[in-house]
Amino acid sequence: MLIVQKFGGSSVADAEKIERVANIIADTYNEGNDVVVVLSAQGDTTDDLVQKAREINPRATNREMDMLLSVGEQISIALMSMQLQKMRIPAISLTGWQVGVETDSSYGMARIRKVHTERMREELAKNKVVIVAGFQGINKSGDITTLGRGGSDTTAVAIAAVLRADKCQIYTDVEGVFTADPRKVPNAKKLEEITYDEMLELSSLGAQVLHNRSVEMAKRFKVDLEVLSSYVRKPGTKVKEVVKNVEKMKIAGIAKDTNVARVTVVGLTDEPGAAYKVFQVMGKAKINVDVILQSMGREGTNDISFTVPQKLGETALSELAAYKDSIGFDHVSLDTTVAKVSIVGTGMMDSAGIASMMFEALYETSINIQMISTSEIKVSVLIDESRADDAVAAIHAKFF
Amino acid sequence: MLIVQKFGGSSVADAEKIERVANIIADTYNEGNDVVVVLSAQGDTTDDLVQKAREINPRATNREMDMLLSVGEQISIALMSMQLQKMRIPAISLTGWQVGVETDSSYGMARIRKVHTERMREELAKNKVVIVAGFQGINKSGDITTLGRGGSDTTAVAIAAVLRADKCQIYTDVEGVFTADPRKVPNAKKLEEITYDEMLELSSLGAQVLHNRSVEMAKRFKVDLEVLSSYVRKPGTKVKEVVKNVEKMKIAGIAKDTNVARVTVVGLTDEPGAAYKVFQVMGKAKINVDVILQSMGREGTNDISFTVPQKLGETALSELAAYKDSIGFDHVSLDTTVAKVSIVGTGMMDSAGIASMMFEALYETSINIQMISTSEIKVSVLIDESRADDAVAAIHAKFF
Repeated sequence: MLIVQKFGGSSVADAEKIERVANIIADTYNEGNDVVVVLSAQGDTTDDLVQKAREINPRATNREMDMLLSVGEQISIALMSMQLQKMRIPAISLTGWQVGVETDSSYGMARIRKVHTERMREELAKNKVVIVAGFQGINKSGDITTLGRGGSDTTAVAIAAVLRADKCQIYTDVEGVFTADPRKVPNAKKLEEITYDEMLELSSLGAQVLHNRSVEMAKRFKVDLEVLSSYVRKPGTKVKEVVKNVEKMKIAGIAKDTNVARVTVVGLTDEPGAAYKVFQVMGKAKINVDVILQSMGREGTNDISFTVPQKLGETALSELAAYKDSIGFDHVSLDTTVAKVSIVGTGMMDSAGIASMMFEALYETSINIQMISTSEIKVSVLIDESRADDAVAAIHAKFF
Repeated sequence: MLIVQKFGGSSVADAEKIERVANIIADTYNEGNDVVVVLSAQGDTTDDLVQKAREINPRATNREMDMLLSVGEQISIALMSMQLQKMRIPAISLTGWQVGVETDSSYGMARIRKVHTERMREELAKNKVVIVAGFQGINKSGDITTLGRGGSDTTAVAIAAVLRADKCQIYTDVEGVFTADPRKVPNAKKLEEITYDEMLELSSLGAQVLHNRSVEMAKRFKVDLEVLSSYVRKPGTKVKEVVKNVEKMKIAGIAKDTNVARVTVVGLTDEPGAAYKVFQVMGKAKINVDVILQSMGREGTNDISFTVPQKLGETALSELAAYKDSIGFDHVSLDTTVAKVSIVGTGMMDSAGIASMMFEALYETSINIQMISTSEIKVSVLIDESRADDAVAAIHAKFF
């Protein structure tokens, strides 16, 4: 089998952890598999480099930031290769440009355009473990780019796709995907399998296991993904197109997102296009709007509430204030003490009672629902931030 | 003018030093020059990386060591580019492979085969300061190589050669080339000019200003070199083919080398080829032999003494012992308490009295000469290590 294994920065943070990861790789290799390994930068390396750059020039160009940051993975791959050589496993490290990970030129958040396979195939044919620097690529000018958040996962999935790997294993510091955050909900269950769509909803909802970009790519190229722990040797969670759902679980998981703020525009003139103007202003300011609630206000006006990423709350407020007259409203307010709690599951489509089970759990725990948003495989509610953990626990108890 | 400027690791060790160097670069640029800058890794970066590697695998392959070590210069060039951008000087950093510094595949000590000019010319044409990573290149497999000791100087000279630069300035932490080590000989004089050949002798004799490889390359391509300080803004020492020697100095400088050991082979059978066999053994063991003295021993045998690098002294001893019977000698001894003191100068060729002036200075200071070696532009003596500084001072006083 050809297996792609990806290990994150905390898994390769020091010599001891590198050795543990090398043992996983060596075992996979010694079972007779072809192995391609994708690594992130060690522990705090990236933060340290960012700090060095800030000290010199807080507004450095993204091109130079990428030149700087890409050394992080280069250090990881060289050290891992050395560790494997010590264990008599033939290994070779390759940077993004050596593999030929071609990207566009959006420094700091580049998208992969093409991944060449020649060099990797050549080294695999020599029976070597190929250790690839994640997170980085090269643009058409021959300059180094980085892929931004979740970049190494994306590199791993892209490589698995072009090599038509049998498996793409994403090793993290958790044992897989859980029905809720296991640090908060002690009886949270690890899922054996989950669909790409469920995983996408969960990761966009704040379950920090896999980044959306990598899951989207895995879905598109039907890459057989598995999320598992680099600390515990046992099966993790498989992410795939269709799951067998042996356990007849109605939902796949519960996610909590506290990085959210609620903006309320009060006293919008009740005429066609008023809501449109509000969201046009948000769009221009590149602020993603999530849950939306429109309600009747006083004296024939409307109120509109919506959620935005918490760090953009103030920006949303000032942008709206700037267009107050042309939009036409009374005033605008911001509430950052809110949290979004969501349940996700493909089973939801067939079962009308799922949402009401969630609301019942919240009602029994005396948690007030401020806003509701639903999709085919998700129900989200906005609640008071201080009750978020209680909400997750209550919903979890109801479903599992 | 097109000027290549090289700054060593101590000159870019931290943010403050980077700013000082950036000011030198900015001034050169603002005077209307095209500027290519070559940088080494910051301060202790290389040592730190070597330490990381040793911790994991003390016998890592050189290919992986080069993959690891090359990040050092990459960090320097990105940070310098950021600093210049802050000062509104357009700058772009380029790694060895981005420039196209082609080398052979001797990882850790690669030789430059070719340096491409396209990318550098392109960026210079955009009025950018081009910041190049020294010490590194790429071999024909597309793998990263490093040039070994003095590598960044060599990169700078090679780039100056291919770009036909008007000047190649090597900035260091000394103000130029001195007639003796200024820390030891207070009235040592800074030379305005020195020939390539004199510089070669001086650097091979332990004056740690420029590495031989870079001087050899400068000589071959007639690169106009200048050694100067990154701390003091004043002219340094020019290294060139012919110097005007306005000061009618008979010698260019005095060098001391204490990293030397004397090996003495006692009781060699007095037959043709005995000396040859000794040096054949040294050659096979890749031990460079320097000053040689053959003298009559007891009972029709010969003794041979020669110097080797101090760290190879024990190896030389054990290699010779292994071939004791086939060479045919009585015993072999090692003395590590010796030093080599040399005077260098092209003027020497015309002036028979130079060597005797040196010997006179030593005699007046009661320093015993153990061995002597001479070349067209150099006289070296082997003396007791404890008297080396006295010897340099005495010779200096005699000549200057």
